Amino acid sequence: MSELDPIIHAPARLRIMTTLDEALADGDEIAFPALQKLLDMTAGNLTTHLAKLEAAGYVASTKTFAGRRPATLVTITPAGRAAFRAYRVQLLDLLGGTR
Amino acid sequence: MSELDPIIHAPARLRIMTTLDEALADGDEIAFPALQKLLDMTAGNLTTHLAKLEAAGYVASTKTFAGRRPATLVTITPAGRAAFRAYRVQLLDLLGGTR
Repeated sequence: MSELDPIIHAPARLRIMTTLDEALADGDEIAFPALQKLLDMTAGNLTTHLAKLEAAGYVASTKTFAGRRPATLVTITPAGRAAFRAYRVQLLDLLGGTR
Repeated sequence: MSELDPIIHAPARLRIMTTLDEALADGDEIAFPALQKLLDMTAGNLTTHLAKLEAAGYVASTKTFAGRRPATLVTITPAGRAAFRAYRVQLLDLLGGTR
């Protein structure tokens, strides 16, 4: 049985990927503060875990401006969604949960 | 949302608890080598993770003799089964899998 993807399996990143997969259709983006609120996570914690997911190519973030204020938008990449779906199937099989 | 139980969440221990929960009825025991074979894990790795699960009170092991050869029997404790079932419900909810 291949190893569960450790990039996704860490609890905080699992919650981030689950939320992005559910909240965003392909190509959608979510503002960092909105994601932070959904996850009830500190900005520092979310930034740390998003950086790890981005390094793996699972999420992407773009810096932009809302009016004159800098804003960060986050999206789940096709590779990230595919990795998460494969991880989810593997974990559900392990847990004996139906998909 | 309370944190996923880190004692169970580590991939190797998740596989151990899933296997013990499925393979053993309450009070049943399994011999270490049989468990090792089921999990396809090294003896060292299994020993390390069983020690952590035993420290948490989730599994128990008893030293005995098979003939004149020492043998170790492993069981899942009621507390371990309850913790695993609660963890499983929490994870399935997170993943949107049905129980």
